[in-house]
Amino acid sequence: MKKERISNNVIRRLPRYLRKLDELMASGVNRISSTELGQQLGFTPSQIRQDFNCFGEFGQQGYGYNVPLLREQIAGILGMDRGFSAVLIGVGHIGRALMDNFCFSEWGINLIQAFDVNPELVGKEVSGVHVSSMDELQKFIANNKVDIAVLTVPRDAALPVSETLIDNGINAIWNFTNVELVEPGSPVIVENLHFSDSLLALSYYVSDYYDGQKK
Amino acid sequence: MKKERISNNVIRRLPRYLRKLDELMASGVNRISSTELGQQLGFTPSQIRQDFNCFGEFGQQGYGYNVPLLREQIAGILGMDRGFSAVLIGVGHIGRALMDNFCFSEWGINLIQAFDVNPELVGKEVSGVHVSSMDELQKFIANNKVDIAVLTVPRDAALPVSETLIDNGINAIWNFTNVELVEPGSPVIVENLHFSDSLLALSYYVSDYYDGQKK
Repeated sequence: MKKERISNNVIRRLPRYLRKLDELMASGVNRISSTELGQQLGFTPSQIRQDFNCFGEFGQQGYGYNVPLLREQIAGILGMDRGFSAVLIGVGHIGRALMDNFCFSEWGINLIQAFDVNPELVGKEVSGVHVSSMDELQKFIANNKVDIAVLTVPRDAALPVSETLIDNGINAIWNFTNVELVEPGSPVIVENLHFSDSLLALSYYVSDYYDGQKK
Repeated sequence: MKKERISNNVIRRLPRYLRKLDELMASGVNRISSTELGQQLGFTPSQIRQDFNCFGEFGQQGYGYNVPLLREQIAGILGMDRGFSAVLIGVGHIGRALMDNFCFSEWGINLIQAFDVNPELVGKEVSGVHVSSMDELQKFIANNKVDIAVLTVPRDAALPVSETLIDNGINAIWNFTNVELVEPGSPVIVENLHFSDSLLALSYYVSDYYDGQKK
């Protein structure tokens, strides 16, 4: 498959395409034109064609896209078929929400272990995943292939725990702590879910909406 | 203040500037050049100047930016000084995580009430916020100024609850349900925190990293 340098904007749109294609497959749709797909997603057909062209030719002129094939190819690009494994650190509210309600395996990720400092949790299973003591984290990482660390510890623990992870060879962190973990230019891959950034963007759009009403 | 049509990319960067400026203020930094700010954020100085120029002239040639002033202006653009109020619907793990650990007021949002179906929670206070029965939601919205609904209900409840909200005049939803709530083009403002989209982007970057190592 042709693989050019892909812009972050395209990468950010791929999961949305994937969800839409899953939805189409679930409703038995096997083929869709870029126009139709665009209407359902609020994108222009040319944007869709442009996005998919970054990765090679998916569609056929006059036929449209083969939905299951396109889905499989996007899943492949996103690494869903690589069997990545993850550990989760911090079984508080957010950690539990992820373990109980977020289906890692649906997205191709194998959540293999969780870690917490709370002695009441250590040794238990949460939604089928074993919770170990934080003291065992280093050893576990050394002895197992861990591709991704899910960081759901409290804010104060964010930096020390991320340092431990990085020092022990973890190269990718899914960060829920609202703390910047690394300096710009660090080779460590950090994907932030900064709740406050999202809320402030919403706050901007609400302000903008109210300002528009006044005119 | 000059206010042009601002691109979504700029809006998404503003909260990050804000967090950095808060950090600088906390360390007693009162003045910063675009070069310095750029280094700390991993942006080029020209991108920073361009971003801030969307909103008017913040900096002075040869002086740099006045940190508290810039912070105040960005906060204003983001609507943090407008006294927006929010309700939270669904006091499960994620709802509780937000109520216990996420400081809405730090971002200018007043969380005034929560709602849940669980009789064990109804009537209680969670981190100082009253939890009401879902049956009272419509009446509450009718009688109070609610700018934002925080939606943290289970997936199955996402669509019916969002319909109730929208039918009762709610125009902005902070959506944690992983479900698309509205059709493209809807006037309702929905800010999604799709965890899976974030995880899949991370999965892409990890794949890309491993592919780079092989070369």
